[in-house]
Amino acid sequence: MKEKEFIKIITETLQSSFIGDDCALLEDLGITVTQDSLVEDVHFSLKFATPYQIGYKSVMVNISDICASGAVPKYLTIALSLPDNIDESFIKEFYRGAKAASGEAKIVGGDITGADKIYISVTAIGCTKERKISSRKNAKIGQKIVISGEHGSSGMGLSILCKNNYTEFSEEERKSFITAHLMPEAQIEFSKKISTSQTSDYAMMDTSDGLADALFAIAEAGNVMLDVDFERIPHKKCLEKINDYNKVILYGGEDYGLIATVDNADGLTVIGKVKSGQGVRINYKDFSEFLTKQDIENNTYNHFKE
Amino acid sequence: MKEKEFIKIITETLQSSFIGDDCALLEDLGITVTQDSLVEDVHFSLKFATPYQIGYKSVMVNISDICASGAVPKYLTIALSLPDNIDESFIKEFYRGAKAASGEAKIVGGDITGADKIYISVTAIGCTKERKISSRKNAKIGQKIVISGEHGSSGMGLSILCKNNYTEFSEEERKSFITAHLMPEAQIEFSKKISTSQTSDYAMMDTSDGLADALFAIAEAGNVMLDVDFERIPHKKCLEKINDYNKVILYGGEDYGLIATVDNADGLTVIGKVKSGQGVRINYKDFSEFLTKQDIENNTYNHFKE
Repeated sequence: MKEKEFIKIITETLQSSFIGDDCALLEDLGITVTQDSLVEDVHFSLKFATPYQIGYKSVMVNISDICASGAVPKYLTIALSLPDNIDESFIKEFYRGAKAASGEAKIVGGDITGADKIYISVTAIGCTKERKISSRKNAKIGQKIVISGEHGSSGMGLSILCKNNYTEFSEEERKSFITAHLMPEAQIEFSKKISTSQTSDYAMMDTSDGLADALFAIAEAGNVMLDVDFERIPHKKCLEKINDYNKVILYGGEDYGLIATVDNADGLTVIGKVKSGQGVRINYKDFSEFLTKQDIENNTYNHFKE
Repeated sequence: MKEKEFIKIITETLQSSFIGDDCALLEDLGITVTQDSLVEDVHFSLKFATPYQIGYKSVMVNISDICASGAVPKYLTIALSLPDNIDESFIKEFYRGAKAASGEAKIVGGDITGADKIYISVTAIGCTKERKISSRKNAKIGQKIVISGEHGSSGMGLSILCKNNYTEFSEEERKSFITAHLMPEAQIEFSKKISTSQTSDYAMMDTSDGLADALFAIAEAGNVMLDVDFERIPHKKCLEKINDYNKVILYGGEDYGLIATVDNADGLTVIGKVKSGQGVRINYKDFSEFLTKQDIENNTYNHFKE
């Protein structure tokens, strides 16, 4: 049973067409809303991350979803479930990190309960006023594919934390990968630029589940082909020291960059074009490859992988 | 370390005056928002509740918070974290229950991830348009205390489920207590009546943590005394078969009734009056008792009780 199959069951049970984008657009209220959870030993580990970093990331991943919608992040609520033995300093540090990540958005409420492990669920609300809101369904043939954020850094950081054997990197390089993983930054400025500069519909997603997964989701929802030049994808140059660095860049996940398909790409980093067809084509210097649904599923992290 | 102390640390860390009511009022967006979590083996057990009932209650407790604010429940998001071995039918039944409880509100998104146990976190959004919104700080001397919902039933239902030895009740009575616990009903009509009929400020809370806890919280926030006639508190008559049924009514919790302090009590069930002083006085036929903070803390369920 896979995550996407679960979502299919939910959509069918609710007989809802709402669920699809990372955020739900609630037009009557002028807001977009998203909710993402982080579970101890699934999404983070106290072995690697400080309470401050956990609070920071929990908020940032939700702000990233609001950014993907094109709305302005405004308010957050945080539900925290904690084991009995957790102490005051965890809560203080967690909320210090959460506050630091929230920027101009405000944390306005939430819940605190007991649990066996640390479970965090954050809801973020964005304001759509004076913004054009995205939908992953909006990709159209002829649009340019634009990107923000460095890709592969967070995935590399996680591998370094877990395996601790990447001696090809300097200490400084290792640290910058680990920071990218533990304290990602949402693409607030890029989101603002896109949602205030486009006059026609555009698709936008964050790359939380990996760049390839986001490209594929946009291609599928718009029934188009995304044609991407690999060399143009922003990434840390030093990542090329390892074999298969292209896989880290495409599938790494949790970089919280944004990709969008737009008519107006002035001043933005273009990595490819929307064409007729289906799926995602990655063009390397000497060859091209089509990413199949199977490639995405095999390489993307899935909480319910059998 | 207690739940309320945790909340104090959070409020201090965020330097926020927002957190206090069950819902946050976001005036610029015209909404109230709340987020409540339910954790397996803390808030529910698969031994007692079906997946349908768990979905139903998870949504209803959040709708109850929106009702406590006086807003109209409009949208919900649900984050579900599930063990690997959970099957399709759990998700289907959970969402069937969630949908049934949502009434005229719509489930518009959420998240699904892995976890060791079942964690559910629901966010509800209410619309404030044409409603007067409550605050627990609003109690004023001379107001009447009004109530909706039967009290003590849910707490009795939980005791029956856990101890299974209340032979004084008929099978039908037992069932009705258990249903009150597993499938509570939010007080949508009462909320509407209050928030569309009051011309002056009013305090309102749901009785999720028990009637006594809610009364005490309103008294404390408004720096007033709540004077309550015990005999007027709505409850199932058969509850009086057990000793200490008054404790079940006052502290039982999870009835999701509403209490409010209002100037205009036309057509509402009045149980007492707001007076000068502090805390809560309960008047029985032959005597009165003041509930102390200690009484509330000793008798109210606390997830972090040492």
